Parts: sequence; C-alpha cells; structure tokens
Amino acid sequence: MFERILVPYDGSTGAERALIKATELAKLCKAHLIIVTVYRHHSMLEASLSMVRGSSEPGSNLDETMRSAAREAADFAKSHAKDAGVEHVSAFIKAGQPARTIVAMANEKACDLIVLGSRGLGATESYLLGSVSHKVTGTADCPVLVV
Amino acid sequence: MFERILVPYDGSTGAERALIKATELAKLCKAHLIIVTVYRHHSMLEASLSMVRGSSEPGSNLDETMRSAAREAADFAKSHAKDAGVEHVSAFIKAGQPARTIVAMANEKACDLIVLGSRGLGATESYLLGSVSHKVTGTADCPVLVV
Repeated sequence: MFERILVPYDGSTGAERALIKATELAKLCKAHLIIVTVYRHHSMLEASLSMVRGSSEPGSNLDETMRSAAREAADFAKSHAKDAGVEHVSAFIKAGQPARTIVAMANEKACDLIVLGSRGLGATESYLLGSVSHKVTGTADCPVLVV
Repeated sequence: MFERILVPYDGSTGAERALIKATELAKLCKAHLIIVTVYRHHSMLEASLSMVRGSSEPGSNLDETMRSAAREAADFAKSHAKDAGVEHVSAFIKAGQPARTIVAMANEKACDLIVLGSRGLGATESYLLGSVSHKVTGTADCPVLVV
C-alpha cells in the first residue's frame, strides 16, 4: 500500500525506532526505502562557535566532519535495512533545517509515507517543544507515521 | 506488523481518508480494526446554547441526538471496513474531549497504531491551529499515522 517510504535517520533512539518500523513496513509493502540523514550547514554553527575557539580552524573542516558523520549514519541505516531484507534501499545526506529538508526530500523523491521518530524527550515534552516530528506532520504532503 | 489499529471516525473528509488507509493497513496486517466516534457531552454545548434557545427543550434530547449521530457514523465506518474485507472490526462511540478520548481509547484497547485524519484545513493551517491530530501525535503511547 506504500511504494516509496522516507525515513530520516540521525542515530538517535527515536530514529532507531523509526528505522525499524520503516524497514518492517517496506518489507511488508515491498516498497523502496529512502533514508535521509540531515545535517546542519557549518555556517549555522560558526556563529555560536566563533566566540569560543581560535580563528585558526577553518570552517570547512567542521563542515567536512559533519558531512562524514552524516554519511556514516546514513550508511549504517542502509546496511540495517539491507540486512533486514529490504530489497530496494537508497541513502542520502542533506544539509539544512531538519523539518523543512525532510518535507522537501519527500516531495523530491515522490514518497507516499514518511516514518519519523518522536518521543525521545517523552510524549508530553516533545509535544510542548514542537519537535521536528510535529513540524513534519503538520507540513508534509503525504501521510506521516510517528513512532 | 500491527495487530490492533484504532481509527477515530467523525465523518469528516480527513476521517474518511484515515478510514481508507486504516482499512488497507488492517487487511495487509490481518489486524483488528477498532473504530471510535467521539462526541461531545451535551453539557459542554449547554453553556453556549442556553443563551439562544428557550428553556423548554431538555438537554437530554440534545445528548440523545449527538449519541445517535455518533452511532450512525461509527456503524457506517464499520460497514465500510467489513465491505472492504477486514475480518475483525469493532465500533464504539465515546463522549469526551477528542484528543484525550482517542488516546485513552488506544490505551484501553491496547492498540499498537492510531490512524488519524489531518489536513482538512490545509497543511500549514492545521499545524498552526494545533489540531486534534497534533495533540494525539504528541501524547499517544503508540505509533500514530497521520494521513
């Protein structure tokens, strides 16, 4: 019933849960599983870090570190899904604001479901904080499964 | 992968969409589909209506009308699911505040998924308004699929 399932994965407990459910659903529906790991542009961190460190460290290093951590997380998730028996799996990394980037990715890849972790902070707290999952649920053009 | 799926149904366009998805999922997973139609206690309406109508109409009539409209909606949803081929379907009506009643019902019936309509008001608007689906997504103890 779902053909293209997007699962954002950042290595958090909530994302682990989402990955497990998305993998199960992808197998059940014989769907294409699309993993995305979203990371922040280094420029967003520059502003906060520039006050506490020397100017010798080039920003490109930080950017590179974040990119490679994201690549590692995305590859880990892809291996998990492949090992669990999902035939068609793709993994991407994207820089940007999490909720907006996830919704844009779902549109770009014509996904018919997004599976998202939540409740990392506890149900009530995550609701009050207006987490990424709430923003995605409110703005996505396709169904969203919050686990 | 899901065994007991709860779908709140109130006859709205969003609820229709939720019912269709929940029915598909219940068939795919051979799950028990549990429908609930939540209606307001007449006492909640009394406060707003008592100003604009005569005192001759007893509140119990209003309560009865709302109960029977809810029963009709729940029975319609049950027939739809049965006709679509879901083997195990139950339908309930409950009086109360929608989000809280839905979450309590999911716990009471040990559901492992809630399927909810959203976007009746358009994506952005429903997010800004903090709709029932957002409240349920933020407070449920099981995964929530917003369609």
